[in-house]
Amino acid sequence: MNNTAFLTACIDLLGRDHVLHDDADVAPYLIDQRKRYVGRALAVLRPADAMQTAALVRLCATHGVSMVPQGGNTGLAGGATPDASGRQVVISLRRLDRIRQVDADNMTLTAEAGCLLANVQAAATAAQRLFPLSLAAEGSCTIGGNLATNAGGTAVLHYGNARELCLGLEVVTPQGELWDGLRGLRKDNTGYDLRDLFIGAEGTLGLITAATLKLYAQPAARMTALAALESPAQALALLNLAQSMAGPLLTGFELMSDFCLRLVAQVFPQQRYPFAETHPQAVLLELSDNESEAHARDLLERLLTAAIERGIVRDAVVAASLAQSNALWHLRESIPLAQSATGLNIKHDIAVPVSQVPAFLAATDPIVQMIAPGARMVTFGHLGDGNLHYNVMAPDGVDPATFLRDFQTPVTSAVHDSVHAHRGTISAEHGLGQLKRDASAHYKSPVELALMRQLKAAFDPLGLMNPGKVLPD
Amino acid sequence: MNNTAFLTACIDLLGRDHVLHDDADVAPYLIDQRKRYVGRALAVLRPADAMQTAALVRLCATHGVSMVPQGGNTGLAGGATPDASGRQVVISLRRLDRIRQVDADNMTLTAEAGCLLANVQAAATAAQRLFPLSLAAEGSCTIGGNLATNAGGTAVLHYGNARELCLGLEVVTPQGELWDGLRGLRKDNTGYDLRDLFIGAEGTLGLITAATLKLYAQPAARMTALAALESPAQALALLNLAQSMAGPLLTGFELMSDFCLRLVAQVFPQQRYPFAETHPQAVLLELSDNESEAHARDLLERLLTAAIERGIVRDAVVAASLAQSNALWHLRESIPLAQSATGLNIKHDIAVPVSQVPAFLAATDPIVQMIAPGARMVTFGHLGDGNLHYNVMAPDGVDPATFLRDFQTPVTSAVHDSVHAHRGTISAEHGLGQLKRDASAHYKSPVELALMRQLKAAFDPLGLMNPGKVLPD
Repeated sequence: MNNTAFLTACIDLLGRDHVLHDDADVAPYLIDQRKRYVGRALAVLRPADAMQTAALVRLCATHGVSMVPQGGNTGLAGGATPDASGRQVVISLRRLDRIRQVDADNMTLTAEAGCLLANVQAAATAAQRLFPLSLAAEGSCTIGGNLATNAGGTAVLHYGNARELCLGLEVVTPQGELWDGLRGLRKDNTGYDLRDLFIGAEGTLGLITAATLKLYAQPAARMTALAALESPAQALALLNLAQSMAGPLLTGFELMSDFCLRLVAQVFPQQRYPFAETHPQAVLLELSDNESEAHARDLLERLLTAAIERGIVRDAVVAASLAQSNALWHLRESIPLAQSATGLNIKHDIAVPVSQVPAFLAATDPIVQMIAPGARMVTFGHLGDGNLHYNVMAPDGVDPATFLRDFQTPVTSAVHDSVHAHRGTISAEHGLGQLKRDASAHYKSPVELALMRQLKAAFDPLGLMNPGKVLPD
Repeated sequence: MNNTAFLTACIDLLGRDHVLHDDADVAPYLIDQRKRYVGRALAVLRPADAMQTAALVRLCATHGVSMVPQGGNTGLAGGATPDASGRQVVISLRRLDRIRQVDADNMTLTAEAGCLLANVQAAATAAQRLFPLSLAAEGSCTIGGNLATNAGGTAVLHYGNARELCLGLEVVTPQGELWDGLRGLRKDNTGYDLRDLFIGAEGTLGLITAATLKLYAQPAARMTALAALESPAQALALLNLAQSMAGPLLTGFELMSDFCLRLVAQVFPQQRYPFAETHPQAVLLELSDNESEAHARDLLERLLTAAIERGIVRDAVVAASLAQSNALWHLRESIPLAQSATGLNIKHDIAVPVSQVPAFLAATDPIVQMIAPGARMVTFGHLGDGNLHYNVMAPDGVDPATFLRDFQTPVTSAVHDSVHAHRGTISAEHGLGQLKRDASAHYKSPVELALMRQLKAAFDPLGLMNPGKVLPD
């Protein structure tokens, strides 16, 4: 490949301002959010729109240049970081940031890939609609990245993952053709489901440039409660009761161990431990109600009263206002922040069938303790989805970095084995990227890996779209 | 190919009773539900389980025999009928009819492909759960067929199509390998979405042998109301209001023109026209409520009162009991029956963005009248999904068969052109099969067709899986 000819052609196409190659300019694009991966790149390319993106992909294909698509660069698995060769380019989609259309009557919104998730949410709100995808990075992640990684978050229980929130896509194929699949249809049975193939493929099959997303009616109120429980099994009994009594109004169900709440109270003293006595587990419940705040609170109270009468719940706090409701969410959201503040830890983003959560914890906690005695378990997450952030902290007084160095590999490998034994997944909502590519391949059947490879070869025979991500080379 | 050697091997594998070739035995498998297509077959093969199905597919692949998978044979697009060559085999999945597992705490159920939809619903009910997929053929269609065609039905508005109700699949690949993708996970981000690729592929990429399906809490009550309206635009305004006031409790929203209701009253005199006066349109609303029948009825009454006050609704009937609720549904379900009773008609299973329904009808009705003056429009369907059964009956006094012969092609072609112009789909919930294969290809972009062909070639390079369906040869 002739680098100069290629870069000149890029400048001709995008303009000089949008072909970055100075070290200082490209540096932020070459390191991932968690600072685990640092790559190099021939250039960072910033197309203005979908047509320019398609032309750029054709140019890369012609010159045999590998492409790493990137949105907000907030991924947690290194999926948007180039390799160390310096022969790949990063294609930043951030300039594709228009909301193309809001169709309130169709309950859809069409946004370009580079729109910040928060801006998509805001455009929906402006049309008195709700776009329910919500996650910690929403102020800096892009909807294109959300779709490429099939992002999850806190509202999956009712609204589903990014995949379930998308009706149509616009995609540039690895050959640089633009596929207009921007359908705003609830029902369409005319052939293979290309949309869902590109969603979650982390840019390895094509490059998402825009999406038509599902909107919902804005609920009149979202109310939360916090319940104190004896065990994860009781949390499951509460989930059952909540689903039976509240049905589709139940939009959040988050588990937090006592240790998580104490950690938050320790790091952020203004966030006090929420109960008078100590309880092993707590669950945050959220109802979204189209009637009224009063109706939601009344239903929460009836639900928790029933749960206390049945011996499922030991104590409970129902938010008295929207502000209290938000404060309870803030408690839950402070757990990862409190963890970061206390140093590195071993993180797992796993899911098992919801019914298997108690058995998984009962089986796995002792294994971790056997490998790393005294390690502190930071177990919390989206219990309603069976998705736990099953994190492991250094024992009290042990240097986190040393702990990580000595125990990350054996602990993670044991946790993943246990997840697999419980028919779970080692990546529930963060994707594979570089981080879990090999571990995932280890657990997948040869049949599934072969099907995935057939897909990759069919769509991207030259292997230029985000190589080395999702599938081992 | 040596037919005798192949059939002998089939008998060795399946037993003599499950290799059908006598004309009388095979006849029911060779004609489709609507009696549009009659094929021939080398044999009808009835494997007992997934392992035997995989071995059978290997056998067919070795002998180069094309396979046509079949479930309940209730499809409406000829997707399960073999061609006229007599060289294909029908693989009937009906013997794979076990409910393998009900995991009530995980809200999942694993069923084999040949389970009748009604039996899947019943297994869910027995576990005090709801499997919401519901359609006219539920007593005779199979869940495998529902998934292969991504079936829709009356509950899509809230619960989604068959695709959205499936968490995992077991599939025999065209090479006869068994892929165990029976995951019961709400979140799993480990690679390409093979599941959704097989769903809706009508058996052309592989053969579904089992599925893990989503269950829901059973609602305490399902209540309906019937609203009389001036126009489709007012129906859309009512949908908006209902979504705002009832949110996720709204599980049905069906449009019926005055002509549809009069046709029902004429054919089934015990089903009287439901309003004192004539109104151009009617909407059936259904709420599913986890609180109580009283709460659902109260909400329906508040909703319709608000709609009448705003001038959206002209008159309304709220069901006073579950029996009345069912009677309103019966009215809606009688429309296709009343149509059949009055002879053949030109059927369309189309969807457009919900917001486009009034414009689509305003544009298309006059075109149909120009082509076939006096034709009677039987317009009804799932307005909440933008999915209309836009059917066209012969003018009063004209022989239906003659009308069909003269007008089917020009009317359907004009309707489909108009659907396409409104960014809709010519097959909303019935699939393509043989019936709409070519018409669908006509409207798809070359990019999309090429991607579909790449997929087909990658998965089924020998072209043995249900050839001639979905994609033109």
